[in-house]
Amino acid sequence: MTQAATTGRKAAPTTHSGRGRPGYGRGDVIRIAVDEFNTRGYEATSMGALATRLGVSKSAIYHHVTSKEEILVEATDRALEALNGVVQEAEELEGTARDRLAVVIGGSTRVLCENPGYVTLLLRLRGNTEVELEIMERRRQVTRKLIDYVREAQEEGVVRPDLDAGLVGRLVFGMINSIVEWYRPDGELTPEAFSEITPSLVFRGLEAK
Amino acid sequence: MTQAATTGRKAAPTTHSGRGRPGYGRGDVIRIAVDEFNTRGYEATSMGALATRLGVSKSAIYHHVTSKEEILVEATDRALEALNGVVQEAEELEGTARDRLAVVIGGSTRVLCENPGYVTLLLRLRGNTEVELEIMERRRQVTRKLIDYVREAQEEGVVRPDLDAGLVGRLVFGMINSIVEWYRPDGELTPEAFSEITPSLVFRGLEAK
Repeated sequence: MTQAATTGRKAAPTTHSGRGRPGYGRGDVIRIAVDEFNTRGYEATSMGALATRLGVSKSAIYHHVTSKEEILVEATDRALEALNGVVQEAEELEGTARDRLAVVIGGSTRVLCENPGYVTLLLRLRGNTEVELEIMERRRQVTRKLIDYVREAQEEGVVRPDLDAGLVGRLVFGMINSIVEWYRPDGELTPEAFSEITPSLVFRGLEAK
Repeated sequence: MTQAATTGRKAAPTTHSGRGRPGYGRGDVIRIAVDEFNTRGYEATSMGALATRLGVSKSAIYHHVTSKEEILVEATDRALEALNGVVQEAEELEGTARDRLAVVIGGSTRVLCENPGYVTLLLRLRGNTEVELEIMERRRQVTRKLIDYVREAQEEGVVRPDLDAGLVGRLVFGMINSIVEWYRPDGELTPEAFSEITPSLVFRGLEAK
């Protein structure tokens, strides 16, 4: 499902839930809309253009969703909930700040690999509306958590103190976020394997020991 | 100049070269066009919209440039020439592959900080035209150089061999490229200082020694 959201393929209509006739379900409409938003830009994609892509009438889309904004909220919610799940996992960990930091770095890598379409939409928001600004604020809360863990790990003495925690947080998330630009879920590198590489690179760096 | 290219401020007209009347020079037109492209998207920005932003007629713009594409080529050329200058510096270095790798990481960080507008335009290209594809190929050559150095440094035994060089190259450039999203040239962190932080983070990682 995630994979189709990042490709240009036209999704095959699925059986319309419970009515026994072929058509698009709400999930299909959202998934394909996210693909369109990521390809053409959220502002530039109209509900009419979306109907054309789906090969249905505009009213058929409004049967599933009330507005473009509703699609945006639902899609970015999925990405944010997955990222917040990672933060929750880190918070509940019995361990050090370094352990929590590793969970957030590895977990967010996995979330990006598993939901490239939804996360790309989240990352490309420009804050042109109130709703977009609210979504971006929720995204920043995840970054702030990462920065907190860096600072705590510095206080624990296990992370070097010479780098500014805020700067480190932005660079690390910048690196992780860039994965959506090229990662292919059908490639050799699984989300699980990738989620072990990023914490190792961030903590140990490139130097051979 | 670079700074104004990333802000929304309307540039004050400068004295038109050699004619003694106030107006926009070619450099101003390109700089402001890049800002518009980065704000609204290259495809979405028409020469008419650009004229409106400048407060001049369309023919006044065509006095300086023949097309939107000419602006794109000239602006991305500046970014690519600066990045190629860094690669050249690394190539001419009498040292190890690790040294060359450090020069490319630090140097490209500095180039991004000094030219955020031009580099942002370069990074956001989608390859919708032949010209865009050519520019993107030149950008990839810089990434390939970084990957070569990672591989050579692995052969030298100074970079850990357990990470795929191609993956490392993409992650490192992903991190550096993300800087354009938030870096402000008028902030406390100078391009020079920043260019020493990224190689240190990449080589040593976060761990306290």
